[in-house]
Amino acid sequence: MNFSMIIYVLSWVVFFSGLFLLPSCVVAIIYQEPEGFAFLFCALVYLAAGWLLTRRKPRSSLFYAREGFVTVALTWVLISLLGALPFTLAGDIPFYVDAFFETVSGFTTTGSTILTDIEVLSHCSLFWRSFTHWLGGMGVLVFVMAILPMGGGNTIHLMRAESTGPSVEKLVPKIRETAATLYSIYVVLTLAELFLLLLGGMNFFEAITACFSTAGTGGFAVLNSSMASYSPYIQYVVILFMFLFGVSFNVYFLIYMKKIKAALGYEELKWYALVVVLATAAIVTDIRHLYPTLEEAFRQGLFHVTSIITTTGYVSFDFELWPVMSKSILVLLMFIGACAGSTGGGMKVSRWLIMGKFMRSELRRFRHPRLVEQIRLNGGLVSSDLLRSVLVYLVSYLLIFIISIFIVTLEGHDLVTNFTAVATTYNNVGPGLSMVGPVCNFSFFTPLSKLVLSFDMLAGRLEVLPLVVTISAMGSELSHRWKRLRRASLD
Amino acid sequence: MNFSMIIYVLSWVVFFSGLFLLPSCVVAIIYQEPEGFAFLFCALVYLAAGWLLTRRKPRSSLFYAREGFVTVALTWVLISLLGALPFTLAGDIPFYVDAFFETVSGFTTTGSTILTDIEVLSHCSLFWRSFTHWLGGMGVLVFVMAILPMGGGNTIHLMRAESTGPSVEKLVPKIRETAATLYSIYVVLTLAELFLLLLGGMNFFEAITACFSTAGTGGFAVLNSSMASYSPYIQYVVILFMFLFGVSFNVYFLIYMKKIKAALGYEELKWYALVVVLATAAIVTDIRHLYPTLEEAFRQGLFHVTSIITTTGYVSFDFELWPVMSKSILVLLMFIGACAGSTGGGMKVSRWLIMGKFMRSELRRFRHPRLVEQIRLNGGLVSSDLLRSVLVYLVSYLLIFIISIFIVTLEGHDLVTNFTAVATTYNNVGPGLSMVGPVCNFSFFTPLSKLVLSFDMLAGRLEVLPLVVTISAMGSELSHRWKRLRRASLD
Repeated sequence: MNFSMIIYVLSWVVFFSGLFLLPSCVVAIIYQEPEGFAFLFCALVYLAAGWLLTRRKPRSSLFYAREGFVTVALTWVLISLLGALPFTLAGDIPFYVDAFFETVSGFTTTGSTILTDIEVLSHCSLFWRSFTHWLGGMGVLVFVMAILPMGGGNTIHLMRAESTGPSVEKLVPKIRETAATLYSIYVVLTLAELFLLLLGGMNFFEAITACFSTAGTGGFAVLNSSMASYSPYIQYVVILFMFLFGVSFNVYFLIYMKKIKAALGYEELKWYALVVVLATAAIVTDIRHLYPTLEEAFRQGLFHVTSIITTTGYVSFDFELWPVMSKSILVLLMFIGACAGSTGGGMKVSRWLIMGKFMRSELRRFRHPRLVEQIRLNGGLVSSDLLRSVLVYLVSYLLIFIISIFIVTLEGHDLVTNFTAVATTYNNVGPGLSMVGPVCNFSFFTPLSKLVLSFDMLAGRLEVLPLVVTISAMGSELSHRWKRLRRASLD
Repeated sequence: MNFSMIIYVLSWVVFFSGLFLLPSCVVAIIYQEPEGFAFLFCALVYLAAGWLLTRRKPRSSLFYAREGFVTVALTWVLISLLGALPFTLAGDIPFYVDAFFETVSGFTTTGSTILTDIEVLSHCSLFWRSFTHWLGGMGVLVFVMAILPMGGGNTIHLMRAESTGPSVEKLVPKIRETAATLYSIYVVLTLAELFLLLLGGMNFFEAITACFSTAGTGGFAVLNSSMASYSPYIQYVVILFMFLFGVSFNVYFLIYMKKIKAALGYEELKWYALVVVLATAAIVTDIRHLYPTLEEAFRQGLFHVTSIITTTGYVSFDFELWPVMSKSILVLLMFIGACAGSTGGGMKVSRWLIMGKFMRSELRRFRHPRLVEQIRLNGGLVSSDLLRSVLVYLVSYLLIFIISIFIVTLEGHDLVTNFTAVATTYNNVGPGLSMVGPVCNFSFFTPLSKLVLSFDMLAGRLEVLPLVVTISAMGSELSHRWKRLRRASLD
């Protein structure tokens, strides 16, 4: 493995971690908060350390899939470790494991919190929480790549490992331009939401943090009531943008290229919209009697369907009070997830489509045994390697899911709590049911469970393989070194 | 498709259904029960109808995989429909959908019941319930094939579709001899259990029905208390034989061929035993404080671990009262299941092994991209077709699981009830948790849910594909005939 290149990229990550903290320092100045010094201190230390570390250039910039996976996994662990520190230093989240959980939840755009009272936090901490969503949504390394020339190596592997969905295409021939294009679309959409929220009379701080959380499909709010206290207009705007950020960014690129017909005909988009419509219809029928008007039932139903399928996790009503059918639909939506290539989490609509088409083609083979059928998605062919990767994803997803539930179960909470805690963190949603329901939080878990759930959030955001590859690579590296050490000591 | 051959096999199934009912008539004579007339009536009707129908020989005896799947699926639906009738005619289970659920639960060796009081049933009905387990365990068509010469066609496809596990090998060159060998091993093991149970002072009726239920890994008991009221000796005998019937019959064949070393080294057997040991150790630690002696805690732990992993579903204690960790382990065991080629259900240890090895080889490919690695199981190579079939199984398993939970959820029971009801029927276990817990039953479900759960039991026993292939084949056949009809009417 090309360790020098991995360390070089990680050094840049340290530098950028410092950079990312600077806006929070500005917020602290505006609100004249002493907690800002913790952010400033960390920012300066990271900038200095990062600058020093990046002076050492790598011997080779060559990158393969394995290096890509390991770099991305280590990047996300590192930036979460670094990003958690100001929370603890500022005194807003005194216990570091809690701060780590909260930061992982931020960067992975999960939105699960260990805070029992959000509103007591300083503005700079609240800003940082939401800003991590925005950074994590499109990807930390994608951001770095958009700004820095990373050398001639195969940095597409970095992008592949960090982006969501089973396949990643370069939109434009150059990786750096692709990254920049993605971030431009991202910024434009975020600004559009900001404008509409300000139009609805939201104050600027609440509006900008809400935009960050919606854009990253994260779900951290600055009020304890999440989105429940806002006007219907604001809620509809949030619904619209949750939906839009759950759409594959390929669609926006097609629109930008004026290929409107291709954009509207995008297969995954049609299925994603269909699921939202069907789930909303079923839930609204089920919860109609709980609300005075049909409009309110529709709004609450649509809000939570969009919030859960895009894995944002905003809450505008305590859906724990809904009938069990509606709650079950929400749990199912967690596993479907948003579109591939969006900022949303979950298994992604396209993976389900590929699995469904794989099933259909296998069934056809019973009728016509000599038929060799190619699976198509979004107009392109699904290669056998891609199909294989979807199945590897599915198997490893299930294995990690089972192991996680098992460890969390050791605490002895009820089955629904254990299951939905893992489901909501692994799919990067945010709220679960029972003890981790929409008006509850994750503070009661032991540090062990918090670390397991943090791992699940990272595994979910990076879509399992980068973490598994890194652990297996580290294991084989350690055993290799151990053997060399033993051989040396025997000589 | 070769419809004439399918109908020919189904006609034999009608005939054998009549044959299978005769032992119950004998039981009715011994206990002088008027309910016996219902069994006798059905037996005579089925024998006569079957005899008449089998007079018409098929034009061709050729059989392919698709015909095999369709025949097996229709056989199991047909024999359940026929087997349910005497229950209703005898008045023991007045509602036919309930009787159908109970018979499907019997043949699929699930052991879930809709009866609130088992002990009021006539002896002939109780005998029939347990006998269906014994017949379903090794397979109805395997029984037919062991007795009848089915012509020169590829009847291996029938056996493949009906036997458990991802791959089926002929033990001896001829199908009929293989089927007869399997049934001989099955009979010998059943008689050994009967002998040991009678030695423990069990009365003959209870012993023979208990043998049938253990052998098929079914779980129907003749007492409301299942196995709780029996002596520790009897419980240990039942534990031993539950474990033995969960072992691949290939192992017994190897022992029969005096290949003891190969039998003990059988890879799946080692993992199966390891899971039983680990799960028992974890549960005994967790439940130790609930019992006066360590022996009792050990016996209860081991009993339910064996009962659930082999998907028998016998109960010797209300494990709903156990701590949540032990209950979670039991739910996990439901999904692991017994060995392939045993009478047990679930996903099977070998499928998990294949998936684990698939994952490992995929991870290795990241390190050595040019490495082409073959997966091995039980000493043999896992072909890419077999691997593909395991993945098809997994995907269709998940899809049916999700759809089933969704339909059952419409009734509005709690999440644990819905989830474990589907999990326990789909994996052919028997008891679940909450409202379908070990001391509860399935009577409260609506007919729709009972039919869905019946479908799940069949899908679980036949390992998903036969039912899915049949539904898809029937769909394409219908649309084909519809098109022909429309074309004819247009002319």
